[in-house]
Amino acid sequence: MPRLAELGIVGGTIEGYGCPGMSNVAAGLVAAELARSDGSVGTFNGVHSFLAMQSIAVLGSEEQRERFLPAMARLERIGAFGLTEPEHGSDAVGLETSARRDGDCYVLNGRKKWIGNGSIADYVIIWARGEDGAVGGYVVETGGQEGSLPGYEATVMTGKTALRAVWQAEITLTGVRVPVENKLAECHSFTDVSRMLDRTRYTVAWRALGLATASYELALAHALRREQFGQPIAGFQLVQDKLARMLAEVTSMQLMCWRLSTLADAGRMTAAMASLAKMNHAAKARAIVADARDILGGDGILLEHDVARHHADMEAIFTFEGTDSVQALIVGREITGLSAISGRKPAR
Amino acid sequence: MPRLAELGIVGGTIEGYGCPGMSNVAAGLVAAELARSDGSVGTFNGVHSFLAMQSIAVLGSEEQRERFLPAMARLERIGAFGLTEPEHGSDAVGLETSARRDGDCYVLNGRKKWIGNGSIADYVIIWARGEDGAVGGYVVETGGQEGSLPGYEATVMTGKTALRAVWQAEITLTGVRVPVENKLAECHSFTDVSRMLDRTRYTVAWRALGLATASYELALAHALRREQFGQPIAGFQLVQDKLARMLAEVTSMQLMCWRLSTLADAGRMTAAMASLAKMNHAAKARAIVADARDILGGDGILLEHDVARHHADMEAIFTFEGTDSVQALIVGREITGLSAISGRKPAR
Amino acid sequence: MPRLAELGIVGGTIEGYGCPGMSNVAAGLVAAELARSDGSVGTFNGVHSFLAMQSIAVLGSEEQRERFLPAMARLERIGAFGLTEPEHGSDAVGLETSARRDGDCYVLNGRKKWIGNGSIADYVIIWARGEDGAVGGYVVETGGQEGSLPGYEATVMTGKTALRAVWQAEITLTGVRVPVENKLAECHSFTDVSRMLDRTRYTVAWRALGLATASYELALAHALRREQFGQPIAGFQLVQDKLARMLAEVTSMQLMCWRLSTLADAGRMTAAMASLAKMNHAAKARAIVADARDILGGDGILLEHDVARHHADMEAIFTFEGTDSVQALIVGREITGLSAISGRKPAR
Amino acid sequence: MPRLAELGIVGGTIEGYGCPGMSNVAAGLVAAELARSDGSVGTFNGVHSFLAMQSIAVLGSEEQRERFLPAMARLERIGAFGLTEPEHGSDAVGLETSARRDGDCYVLNGRKKWIGNGSIADYVIIWARGEDGAVGGYVVETGGQEGSLPGYEATVMTGKTALRAVWQAEITLTGVRVPVENKLAECHSFTDVSRMLDRTRYTVAWRALGLATASYELALAHALRREQFGQPIAGFQLVQDKLARMLAEVTSMQLMCWRLSTLADAGRMTAAMASLAKMNHAAKARAIVADARDILGGDGILLEHDVARHHADMEAIFTFEGTDSVQALIVGREITGLSAISGRKPAR
Repeated sequence: MPRLAELGIVGGTIEGYGCPGMSNVAAGLVAAELARSDGSVGTFNGVHSFLAMQSIAVLGSEEQRERFLPAMARLERIGAFGLTEPEHGSDAVGLETSARRDGDCYVLNGRKKWIGNGSIADYVIIWARGEDGAVGGYVVETGGQEGSLPGYEATVMTGKTALRAVWQAEITLTGVRVPVENKLAECHSFTDVSRMLDRTRYTVAWRALGLATASYELALAHALRREQFGQPIAGFQLVQDKLARMLAEVTSMQLMCWRLSTLADAGRMTAAMASLAKMNHAAKARAIVADARDILGGDGILLEHDVARHHADMEAIFTFEGTDSVQALIVGREITGLSAISGRKPAR
Repeated sequence: MPRLAELGIVGGTIEGYGCPGMSNVAAGLVAAELARSDGSVGTFNGVHSFLAMQSIAVLGSEEQRERFLPAMARLERIGAFGLTEPEHGSDAVGLETSARRDGDCYVLNGRKKWIGNGSIADYVIIWARGEDGAVGGYVVETGGQEGSLPGYEATVMTGKTALRAVWQAEITLTGVRVPVENKLAECHSFTDVSRMLDRTRYTVAWRALGLATASYELALAHALRREQFGQPIAGFQLVQDKLARMLAEVTSMQLMCWRLSTLADAGRMTAAMASLAKMNHAAKARAIVADARDILGGDGILLEHDVARHHADMEAIFTFEGTDSVQALIVGREITGLSAISGRKPAR
Repeated sequence: MPRLAELGIVGGTIEGYGCPGMSNVAAGLVAAELARSDGSVGTFNGVHSFLAMQSIAVLGSEEQRERFLPAMARLERIGAFGLTEPEHGSDAVGLETSARRDGDCYVLNGRKKWIGNGSIADYVIIWARGEDGAVGGYVVETGGQEGSLPGYEATVMTGKTALRAVWQAEITLTGVRVPVENKLAECHSFTDVSRMLDRTRYTVAWRALGLATASYELALAHALRREQFGQPIAGFQLVQDKLARMLAEVTSMQLMCWRLSTLADAGRMTAAMASLAKMNHAAKARAIVADARDILGGDGILLEHDVARHHADMEAIFTFEGTDSVQALIVGREITGLSAISGRKPAR
Repeated sequence: MPRLAELGIVGGTIEGYGCPGMSNVAAGLVAAELARSDGSVGTFNGVHSFLAMQSIAVLGSEEQRERFLPAMARLERIGAFGLTEPEHGSDAVGLETSARRDGDCYVLNGRKKWIGNGSIADYVIIWARGEDGAVGGYVVETGGQEGSLPGYEATVMTGKTALRAVWQAEITLTGVRVPVENKLAECHSFTDVSRMLDRTRYTVAWRALGLATASYELALAHALRREQFGQPIAGFQLVQDKLARMLAEVTSMQLMCWRLSTLADAGRMTAAMASLAKMNHAAKARAIVADARDILGGDGILLEHDVARHHADMEAIFTFEGTDSVQALIVGREITGLSAISGRKPAR
């Protein structure tokens, strides 16, 4: 983390507060490059710089931005984003964690699951439903890894087969008290959370590109090096056919990432565009990584050859920040004007 | 054809000689738009403006350009491109048609197959092997549809299920005499033909995009209009999922087409890039058209709904100007430095 | 047709009335073999022997069976099955054609679409909703191809790209009078029609197998015969890979067809099993036919090479007797106990 | 292992010597059921009962069978199969380990890789090339896990992401002395090894079926239990569509496994049939497991939900005992009579 801090990339597109204020294209390239080396590192930065810091940057007050962001930009304070719950993943909109006003504090009760950095973060943004039913964001200052905030209990989830270097936590909030000044000032409803997520989702498409690129390159290098029947396997038609199609997809993904971020820079990226890219890139990257795994043969199941790790990590990226199906239905709604997400009878 | 001539698009990227001198991006958009309405129209223009006219523009002398191109640009003269033979499709390099010098003429003997416009063209460029073994291009002036050039016999191929409005011919050349000044001046070997094809292949990718775009739009319109179980089928998850993925592919194809043509405009498009795009776009368009056919249900097999025609036409585009496999192996060779095309033991 | 009649296969599994009384395995093999030569011939027999004759055999009275079946078994009388309507394909259950009792007759009004043999059949079974709302079957005796039953108008649908030798009609019924004794005695509701269709649907799976088998064999023969780069293309890895996977699918399809029919013979085939096979086989055959088309290269779009025809015909089989999506959701309902077919909120 | 021994299944199809003498169908069902619970357990038994014990049963002398098999059937002695080498996986035929006769012993030198049970087995069958160039089998008695046979060094391979409970070893043989009576009496060439592998390969198809079945069932159970948007996700069209297609594939796989083993029981299973099944089942199971992983959402990357483990394990099965490509080319050779495996110019 100290070395990640030194790179001057933490905070991504945020301007000021010690953040680099990158363009969306630049932030995307960073996301892809981090993921190209390691999906977990990329995801750590995604959670910290995008989900957590952007929440504060976009939905916080000026005072909140000044209070939280600079230390986060230096990675002296780590952020987490507490949205999903045991019973609410794809339909996070139905979240049940509650926030009740009690004097100078809000009192939080509920459970969160799958929260990246949840057990080590200093600032965990907990999304909870207020007494009026509207969802708000509460910056829970946990005291960090050694902290012991009363009522806050974060248990690292074990047995993960993907993104193993990202510690995700199951969090129980039992009467956790959060000062009123820690409620994000500009978040008035779930729509605000959703809109913020729409703005950062494109980074997941870049991360999928990162894994795909790495896997393609590793497969090519392996195919050139590995000889069977007296020649490099890269000379076989079946291997070349796979490599050619992988390259076509990687190239397409690059172009869509670039175009999406260019539109974001111009303020013209829509939520459905980001969903389209996430859906497309996660599925394509998954196929590329699987082909790379195949080309590596037995070596593809050994961690020393990085493709094995990418193959495992890809599964988390395929699912998180909106599953394949959910993204397809978000795009479908935009295309048709009809919502099929909840499976109820569609209405115009 | 008169109306096509009026559009000022014939001749595509050729400058001068009455041609529009479009950029590669513009020529690509034209190719896509023509194919979007009808694959046969798009292919007719591809054969005439790109294969035939480009051969003269790129491999002809100044005199030849001036002699042939202006009337072709006005569509007063129609061109054809006689490369493939009954026994030489993917390995056109092995063509057997011969050209023998005899006084002021070359004498052509051999057979060609699949020659678009072959039975109606005024100028048929016949690629033949000279006495030195090198492939050259010979502009055969057939006299057009009513002409009767001795030894030249073009029979329209019947029973085609794709691109039915493109008349493709099987041509027999029996001692056809071509004046020496009709031999393309700058074509010295098959490599020259090949290089010229590399430069025009990108238009096939645009045409595949055209069919894909049309099919996507027709499927969407149908899904919004067609009601079953009391609601538009566009409201069903399975239909939306298909539409979303079709849109993702169409968008990716647009971006790759645009990028490829931009590189062409900058003189940086390589043969392998064009092959990558042809391979990728033909395969993707084929899948999109098939999904559109599925969404249209029974209507998808009726010509009155254009998808049925696109579904049939797509098969020709999938195969011509380099099959899926051949393009993959051209890309594979570029990636790996090893040729697997002929199936012989690859050598570095 | 006279030669089809001579084969002793018309009537399929029906026992007595001049029908062969085949086992379901035998009837399936016949369906596959007919389709292997020609999808239209197979579909003609499917409409006549299964849809039309089975309706009478299963839902008719003994008197009706004796009156209609023997001449149909000899193909002296041709049958048709009038279920789908312009607005009701997948949801045929919503059919709007009406039957009103008037003295000794029922009076039929409505429109039917996609009715195979509709313009040439002697006996067209029209499914219509009675005054009580229940669907019944009415054997309309049209007088055959030269007949002129008042109010019955069958127009052959033109512009079909698939199964061109099956003439499908759009039928308008305007006060068509049908004697009461022509109402199928044992059909009391749409459920009865549905159950009958469930019992014959397996033959579509066999027909898909027929097209797949033919296409595989034609592709293999072509690959062994066609030489490029000095060798049969069957020697290339990419071609062998396709052939191997096609064979695996054909083999799997054979086994499922056989097992399904064996279960049918034992009275244990369920509706969902038949849907599973139709869904699976139509999709697999479609892929196999497309691969065969690819392997044939340009020859694959010429009718003289039969794969072009199979490629076109496959699209009709893919869609009819329940689309890919509808069959998947019928299977899904059986698996989960939840219906998602109408897209409304599923209920247990 | 004691409990596995108690089941009376070790030794599979071998008759006598304390082995159960199962039919190939029964042995296949056992393979599928073991894999259904755990791929590693299934693979352990595959290595021990099939690769190792079958080598002795098929290629050993009566004396060798009596000497080695009974203790192996009781799992008092564990077997391993030392074929693949660092540089020879798909082309195991090129193995470089050597066997030199020296008095009453053979002296083995070389390296083996990926040897399941290699570090714990009592009997490791090392395939080595004799002084005459022919490949022979040598039963190396290692002394088991605590043994210290001079020159035999087996290092457990670490960092595996698949089949983690199968310990695979890299083995170095430096002048290992094996008594002459431990050379398998009936193995005269690589063809014998190959033939033996052909006879046991079908068990891998059954194991792929086991993982596929388990994954399908886990996905279905999860979909019925997991609620989002107020209803079980099993009620959504997109989930049902996946489940329906998974079931179709599982059913097809069951049928092909059964048929293959029935043919084996009748002595009619060919090598290409076994390759067809391995290729088909590994690819299909891989797709099914991936869909199951998708349906499980985030839970699909947690080991507590078994699909995560199956997803990882599947990759080893996809690759071992002949990769996807190699199996396809073995089938392709059988179909076409042309070999494309080595990528050299195919000869009839």
